[in-house]
Amino acid sequence: MAVAELSTSCTKTHSSQLSLSSSYSSRFSHHFRRSFRPLPTTRNPTISCSVASDQVQTPIPVQAQDLKGKSECYGVFCLTYDLQAEEETKSWKKLINIAVSGAAGMISNHLLFKIASGEVFGPNQPVALKLLGSERSIQALEGVAMELEDSLFPLLREVSIGINPYEVFQDAEWVLLIGAKPRGPGMERADLLDINGQIFAEQGKALNASASPNVKVIVVGNPCNTNALICMKNAPNIPAKNFHALTRLDENRAKCQLALKAGVFYDQVSNMTIWGNHSTTQVPDFLNARIKGLPVKEVIKDHKWLEEEFTEKVQKRGGVLIKKWGRSSAASTAVSIVDAIRSLITPTPEGDWFSSGVNNLLKLVVYSRSVYTNGNPYGIAEDIVFSMPCRSKGDGDYELVKDVIFDDYLLKRIKKVYMPVSFWCKGDCSSEIREGFQGLPQLNFGLDMSFSEAELLAEKRCVAHLTGEGIGFCDLPEDTMLPGEM
Amino acid sequence: MAVAELSTSCTKTHSSQLSLSSSYSSRFSHHFRRSFRPLPTTRNPTISCSVASDQVQTPIPVQAQDLKGKSECYGVFCLTYDLQAEEETKSWKKLINIAVSGAAGMISNHLLFKIASGEVFGPNQPVALKLLGSERSIQALEGVAMELEDSLFPLLREVSIGINPYEVFQDAEWVLLIGAKPRGPGMERADLLDINGQIFAEQGKALNASASPNVKVIVVGNPCNTNALICMKNAPNIPAKNFHALTRLDENRAKCQLALKAGVFYDQVSNMTIWGNHSTTQVPDFLNARIKGLPVKEVIKDHKWLEEEFTEKVQKRGGVLIKKWGRSSAASTAVSIVDAIRSLITPTPEGDWFSSGVNNLLKLVVYSRSVYTNGNPYGIAEDIVFSMPCRSKGDGDYELVKDVIFDDYLLKRIKKVYMPVSFWCKGDCSSEIREGFQGLPQLNFGLDMSFSEAELLAEKRCVAHLTGEGIGFCDLPEDTMLPGEM
Repeated sequence: MAVAELSTSCTKTHSSQLSLSSSYSSRFSHHFRRSFRPLPTTRNPTISCSVASDQVQTPIPVQAQDLKGKSECYGVFCLTYDLQAEEETKSWKKLINIAVSGAAGMISNHLLFKIASGEVFGPNQPVALKLLGSERSIQALEGVAMELEDSLFPLLREVSIGINPYEVFQDAEWVLLIGAKPRGPGMERADLLDINGQIFAEQGKALNASASPNVKVIVVGNPCNTNALICMKNAPNIPAKNFHALTRLDENRAKCQLALKAGVFYDQVSNMTIWGNHSTTQVPDFLNARIKGLPVKEVIKDHKWLEEEFTEKVQKRGGVLIKKWGRSSAASTAVSIVDAIRSLITPTPEGDWFSSGVNNLLKLVVYSRSVYTNGNPYGIAEDIVFSMPCRSKGDGDYELVKDVIFDDYLLKRIKKVYMPVSFWCKGDCSSEIREGFQGLPQLNFGLDMSFSEAELLAEKRCVAHLTGEGIGFCDLPEDTMLPGEM
Repeated sequence: MAVAELSTSCTKTHSSQLSLSSSYSSRFSHHFRRSFRPLPTTRNPTISCSVASDQVQTPIPVQAQDLKGKSECYGVFCLTYDLQAEEETKSWKKLINIAVSGAAGMISNHLLFKIASGEVFGPNQPVALKLLGSERSIQALEGVAMELEDSLFPLLREVSIGINPYEVFQDAEWVLLIGAKPRGPGMERADLLDINGQIFAEQGKALNASASPNVKVIVVGNPCNTNALICMKNAPNIPAKNFHALTRLDENRAKCQLALKAGVFYDQVSNMTIWGNHSTTQVPDFLNARIKGLPVKEVIKDHKWLEEEFTEKVQKRGGVLIKKWGRSSAASTAVSIVDAIRSLITPTPEGDWFSSGVNNLLKLVVYSRSVYTNGNPYGIAEDIVFSMPCRSKGDGDYELVKDVIFDDYLLKRIKKVYMPVSFWCKGDCSSEIREGFQGLPQLNFGLDMSFSEAELLAEKRCVAHLTGEGIGFCDLPEDTMLPGEM
């Protein structure tokens, strides 16, 4: 919020200069973008903040040299403007900063244009896009910025590009972390967790240092749940509940498959939860979901299909798609990110909910042998990022849904009755974990990774060195990445 | 219009069946989509058309066999629904059919999701998307349809895929022709015109036979102006003025470059015309364009830049972009298609205009040696598809803008004082063309192809065999394709 105010005041400051001075060298040397740079502390607080439209002079050309040293902004987005001075824009809200990592990739290529068009944040919400890339992709980022220029989106007021997250996340109110290293040939899953974990640890630190204190973060890069956890742990000053792992594409796919099976249009399916990890251990919940307001099991009588085929259909979707189209599902992933954002900024329809991978532990509680803990109403081990049903008042925040039911089938799939071992393991974990499991005869050594909760706890132990919780110990199952994803 | 009515009545018919019968085999055997199939003539006109919401029964699952033989629709979009029965949808407009060729390509991959989201036709306009591909791309089309399913767009009510334009264009009210063969290595431009010309001749015939009589057609596949001409000539029953060649991306780029040079935000640039061909002979018009309501030349004092650099900047944009990003400008092209459609369905802002490649010849006029003819106010040779300034009342139609000015610079670039030779040439043209030019000493044999009008007339002669105007004779200049385009 402070960001937007600064932005507006700077712009206004600037515009007043425009009316007072015809020297464009002074004009462009005062490029008070809130991005990447401490704001000057010596600004004159008495500078007037608006210009009557008849005072607007013939604009003065930008010279190449004016733009030098302003590498953070791009092209036409380095120019100043005064939203208050124009009839069309003076009723607009304050500009918000949205940072996107992996900005040169295909998902972002869909998402950025949706944000810029006003489709996500609405028709009177000006936006600034801050694109984070790598050394390798900086040229591509310029290409993206050029296409954004050429699209003439009225609401898109600023575009900046960079490779330093501390700079790019400056004052960001939304951060969409899409970029992640893909799994290379022969790479163990533990290696992937570690490589990406390091990226997300760094980005978490950058968020903590630079972003708006109430920034909302949606992690898309895989493994997104644990990446979100790492990010969160490295950003202690940002509320933990502001971090989300994207399971919305899974939710959307699950709704579509239920609609298809039931013979109804997809707008009739509601209350769909994806429980757990964005991996093959996830649990699309047909027990609580509804079709035309009725429980799914009352509508779809083929319970064998629900129990044995439905989940696989949802999970294999990306793989089928990549086979057919030869590319991964960038467009529908971008749509699901839009859905995830909109679910947080518009009130959830009465009685419905949406899924998001969240951590609702605001302070660390002491773990006991009890299954059910205080932090979430479902008894899921806390301090992991777990996809759960959420409702929002549309203020960017959310609460967990309490009125869900469980049966044996669902419970068995989303959790397992065992002691969360993550806090037994502060040093070299292997022997302690062995010990920790001795009292649980139904478990073999190691966790049964077909369960989302166990898998996420194992991932968490594996990245303990990145979350400040000891030495990482990886005892991970085989590949549970969803087919068709990197 | 008739299309939408049929659609609604069929749906209603269907919904009434739902309340009367629990047999889903009959339910799905009556898949009265308006697509590709004559509507049954024996429908009972007395079937009631709406169902009270309390009459809605538990929906009945679709079985795989129900969907057999319905290859035209895809997945969940084969299901029926009743827009009138739901509170959220009963105020919606009638469904419109939008066909897109090259639907598996990257431009379409952006465009289709924009149309489906409601960004193009508005928030209460349900849409049916009809995707045209080739034998080779049919699997990819299924991938696209799957992603559209997974996006759960409430307004997207039907998706069908096919490779036969006669089927896919059935009752289409908008047709966006994006697909075209790219120029292969060593391929002459004449070959490209011929190969793509044949595709567009066939698509024109299909439009004539199948599409809504007042269908609006936007041609994007290159060479788009002449492809649009061919298409139009093969669809004599559709008003010629309904055919557009896309020059909107050029217009958008030109606006952005002027904004950047002037040091203003791009929303301050208006009245931008792209004259002529979507090729390097195009003329971005800085004489009539305005910045903050002032003539460009009053704002940008660097007239040398305007005359010598501006046009090149606009035209080289795509090439620069492909170098930076490694891909062509799919996203901004899709945005410009959206702009082109919106410009026809929303009233043009007072005093402003937009560019489109159009043919305003409604009947063939006898050509004389006079430069200025009756069909358009600019004296441009008629019966070619030429980008010109247009205004719309928002009804899908448009008129040419009369209040534009010309100076020597502009005139010299958009046209040339010479006899249009296309009608001298009905048989083997070469000798006749030679003859035709004998009275014009200032011209060498052949036309000076640096002029858009001459180039388009030459392209037209080259495809005469595809427009029913004699034998094609190709005397084309070197490559004038815009850099970065196929």
